[in-house]
Amino acid sequence: MGELALTPDPDASTEEYRAEIAEAVRALARSRRPHQGFDPAYGGEGDVGGVVAAFQMLGHGDLSLLVKAGVQWGLFGGALQALGTARHHDRYLRDMMDGTLLGCFAMTETGHGSDVQHLRTTATYDADTHEFVIHTREPGARKDYIGGAARDARMAAVFAQLVTGGPNEVSQTHGVHCFLVPIRSEAGDALPGVTITDCGVKAGLNGVDNGRLVFDSVRVPREALLNRYADVSPEGVYSSDITNETRRFFTMLGTLVRGRISVAGGAASATQKALTLAVRYGETRRQFSDPATGEEVVVLDYLVHQRKLLPALATTYALQFAQNDLVSQMHDLQKPGAEPDEERQRDLETRAAGIKAIGTWHATRTIQTCREACGGAGYLAENLLPALKADTDVFTTFEGDNTVLLQLVAKTLLSDYGRRVAKLDLAGKVRFGADLVAGTVLERTGARSVLRRGDLRDPAHLRRLLVDREEHLIASGALRMRKALAPGADQFAVFNGAQDHLLAAARAHVDRIVFDAFAAVADRHPLLGRVLALHGLSVIEGDRAWFVEHGYLTAARTKAVTTAVNALCGELRPHARELVDAFGIPQNWLDCPLLDGERTRPTEADEQHADTLTAVG
Amino acid sequence: MGELALTPDPDASTEEYRAEIAEAVRALARSRRPHQGFDPAYGGEGDVGGVVAAFQMLGHGDLSLLVKAGVQWGLFGGALQALGTARHHDRYLRDMMDGTLLGCFAMTETGHGSDVQHLRTTATYDADTHEFVIHTREPGARKDYIGGAARDARMAAVFAQLVTGGPNEVSQTHGVHCFLVPIRSEAGDALPGVTITDCGVKAGLNGVDNGRLVFDSVRVPREALLNRYADVSPEGVYSSDITNETRRFFTMLGTLVRGRISVAGGAASATQKALTLAVRYGETRRQFSDPATGEEVVVLDYLVHQRKLLPALATTYALQFAQNDLVSQMHDLQKPGAEPDEERQRDLETRAAGIKAIGTWHATRTIQTCREACGGAGYLAENLLPALKADTDVFTTFEGDNTVLLQLVAKTLLSDYGRRVAKLDLAGKVRFGADLVAGTVLERTGARSVLRRGDLRDPAHLRRLLVDREEHLIASGALRMRKALAPGADQFAVFNGAQDHLLAAARAHVDRIVFDAFAAVADRHPLLGRVLALHGLSVIEGDRAWFVEHGYLTAARTKAVTTAVNALCGELRPHARELVDAFGIPQNWLDCPLLDGERTRPTEADEQHADTLTAVG
Repeated sequence: MGELALTPDPDASTEEYRAEIAEAVRALARSRRPHQGFDPAYGGEGDVGGVVAAFQMLGHGDLSLLVKAGVQWGLFGGALQALGTARHHDRYLRDMMDGTLLGCFAMTETGHGSDVQHLRTTATYDADTHEFVIHTREPGARKDYIGGAARDARMAAVFAQLVTGGPNEVSQTHGVHCFLVPIRSEAGDALPGVTITDCGVKAGLNGVDNGRLVFDSVRVPREALLNRYADVSPEGVYSSDITNETRRFFTMLGTLVRGRISVAGGAASATQKALTLAVRYGETRRQFSDPATGEEVVVLDYLVHQRKLLPALATTYALQFAQNDLVSQMHDLQKPGAEPDEERQRDLETRAAGIKAIGTWHATRTIQTCREACGGAGYLAENLLPALKADTDVFTTFEGDNTVLLQLVAKTLLSDYGRRVAKLDLAGKVRFGADLVAGTVLERTGARSVLRRGDLRDPAHLRRLLVDREEHLIASGALRMRKALAPGADQFAVFNGAQDHLLAAARAHVDRIVFDAFAAVADRHPLLGRVLALHGLSVIEGDRAWFVEHGYLTAARTKAVTTAVNALCGELRPHARELVDAFGIPQNWLDCPLLDGERTRPTEADEQHADTLTAVG
Repeated sequence: MGELALTPDPDASTEEYRAEIAEAVRALARSRRPHQGFDPAYGGEGDVGGVVAAFQMLGHGDLSLLVKAGVQWGLFGGALQALGTARHHDRYLRDMMDGTLLGCFAMTETGHGSDVQHLRTTATYDADTHEFVIHTREPGARKDYIGGAARDARMAAVFAQLVTGGPNEVSQTHGVHCFLVPIRSEAGDALPGVTITDCGVKAGLNGVDNGRLVFDSVRVPREALLNRYADVSPEGVYSSDITNETRRFFTMLGTLVRGRISVAGGAASATQKALTLAVRYGETRRQFSDPATGEEVVVLDYLVHQRKLLPALATTYALQFAQNDLVSQMHDLQKPGAEPDEERQRDLETRAAGIKAIGTWHATRTIQTCREACGGAGYLAENLLPALKADTDVFTTFEGDNTVLLQLVAKTLLSDYGRRVAKLDLAGKVRFGADLVAGTVLERTGARSVLRRGDLRDPAHLRRLLVDREEHLIASGALRMRKALAPGADQFAVFNGAQDHLLAAARAHVDRIVFDAFAAVADRHPLLGRVLALHGLSVIEGDRAWFVEHGYLTAARTKAVTTAVNALCGELRPHARELVDAFGIPQNWLDCPLLDGERTRPTEADEQHADTLTAVG
């Protein structure tokens, strides 16, 4: 992918940048790499996991290209493949893969970003003409932030409330479905009834042409409905194997989980690149002298600098292993011929939501820290960090707002928990009740911590703590939510009062999953054990108040956690370069003046001059 | 300042943007507002505090203008005024104030950003010609990131090692001093011996022309030395009233404290603007329905959304009051005719360093949170948050890297503490020793917390906790640092091992100062008491592990802190709009599509349609 190592001119106009990215998308299509993920029957390779992994590699380069490719082959192509049927595949799949049909994914509306089940665009079936009428019925129903809409896309996968029943019968809404709607002529003009506007300049990702779509009774044939999960007969009769509307909608959404996983992968790549730059700079940059030697100290030798970068590096390792698991789990479920498995699909969606949220927040925080760790140099566009920061910022928002995603995770955790409890026999329920009471007592006396002694670096010990926290937060969260079921309870008030608790439970769950993914491979290299320990300990340190508050650690023990984090920072410091090199980012994707110090360490002549200067001072 | 409410085209080229900002700087000069801060003898008004407060107002507008103005009148003008003498003032002060002489402030070098005492540029006195020779002796001595250097500045205030003694005698270095060096002709060309390059596009602040300066034996007259604190006679004899080189250097630096205070002010303004946007958006944006009513919930009614914005809002209030104190303290010390007061000056510098660090980190974090709280809309340039975020990012770095500044604060705290202890008589020292031992015991038993019961919202109680933490961290930090004095100790290792401890002490100190500044005015409005409590409690909550670990709070008590933060979020929610309106940002500086929802709340017609849609669904 060397040809895709774009270094866009940071002073290019938006139009120039968009044009460059559009050209890169065409180059990517020519490479036939995107074909890899699609149905072999249409010239693809069915390697769903491989394409997501390749997509992640793009994240080491220009992120506008990553997102633009993600829109074309992940979102638009993904909807076409997963929600469409042969009639759509036959007609569009090859053109979509080849990039001769550029598409966009028109889900989000101005008024509904997170709550997409309640989108307001309508697709009303007209049985007389056998057409759907796509219509923007209010300002808030405008499709917004749609990547590809402002400049390049010819067709949109439009999500809209499907309405049947004409003027003479009662109309019926069947929930949100996806429709293929041409929006632009080959010449690039908006088609009749479609109003396209440009979202303009953004904080980042300016190579992507985000736009807005308003539909004024735009007619598309009945076949425009992507009808894998539901269909409308020519006469206007709606049918679906999934009778529950909500379940149907979330089944459709679930097939699109690849987008979320891809964003997590892109965030991981960007974080790895930022850390590579900051660690390598930190190994050459010197500031202030050691009083004993008079020599200026390399900044990565300072504890506080290590603290900024090394725990984040350890967590980046952990997230990459979790991402690998996620991708292979997805591959198993989506590869050609795979048997549908509802439970594993549900688990995949929960993991994807959680890892996307935790991973993109980690990216935003870590890239910011890396920028600061590189000082003024980190602020210059030529040193790559500004684009990494600006481009990844919206990752916490798109493909699902992180807070909303964690709520989704929490909801699943609580309902799984509820099912587990419901399955208990009477004796089990009594024991379960007793456990909770005993739990409260333990919490008050701090006696639990007696059980939580052990080597702080031992993965089993760290895991135990993470599991304790996860289980405790889920069980106590479930208890709080039970109140919402009491007669006369204000459900919203109960939920809202516990919202921070539920998010904490979701985080604890994701932390444990991520830790497990890392622990499973930590014996592959002698260094990894310590990286795992640093990751686990820094997660625990970050929430150590919780462990003390709930009696899982004593205050003395949490102090030892901090001491252990510091010690591990010191131990891993000599290996920092090796650890970032292992991310395997090609050097030409990293070249920038920030790393010039690696070539121009002070020469002997400089040193002599410096000595003279100090001597005469 | 209505005319300065710039809304630069986000798609303008760098050159267009720079030109627009340069024009705005001229407009600002014509307004004669910058004159306000300078010596009345030269047409100023001597209102040092007023000008810094006015500068902060600029922070509600375009931040490139803020920084460009800060370079001209704060840094360049400030150096000229504070380090120069009549010979410089007579010749340049009026032109500088009028903006007919545009200057830059050339301190930072590629190799030395934080450790400016060890800059490598030299200014060697040539007694034969009565000139200083300004020279860049190595690549790392290049002046870097200099605002104004790339395009507009005609003159630079250059910081360089002053060297006397010619080829026939031993040369002597007297430390860093400041020199006025012309760098560009009136036509805009670099002068002979001066090589100017452009730092190019940055993550933000692209209306500011940052550049690099390399001097090849550039000669300036002897009088170019800003000689308020030191001079060189025509014969080449160096003299200064301050004999200690380090003390002399930091005395000179200290006079420039205004820059740091101004950055803190700019960060405060930007934070206030971001919060105003996010709170107002959060009051109109609706997402997901209340199951009881079916109505979509305003996002600011969600606990987690309140948690994101309201504690940050409370801390923004606290920081503004601390900033007000800082500005008035500076005004008292720097106003015309003020008596020099070394102790108060030192205190001012420590406060300025601390509040700049804490305030700019708060800005970076809060503006990021506000962007995320506005979802996709927050990512669009038209909604102002992207510029706020990108432009303020470097505030954590320039005018002193925040980590280095906090270290400076810690150093002062420890040496003050050392002096206090040294003054104790023998009995006092014994008691002091006993205290520390007793402290350790208390820490182990957690008995201290008995003393720390009380109303969690009571300012006196909150203050006591903040003072406890500050004093504990300073005393125990001092104890650790004492080890560095032991014979044979590795000073660097001792310091480095305690670096995180020292930074925590500095933070604790700044937190207490900021709290005090707020507490002193909290009775001015009935709401402020609760805002103060939310600020104090959220600071304590953020570090609650520390309070438990050191026996100042029980685990049960820290849980109560979290509960109290949640409760206060709920109580202040109805007042959120009032609280951001009180920042007084003119509406035309806030106008953007993000706030359109305030005008276009769903109409009755929309609501009816929505009901219909729900009813038929």
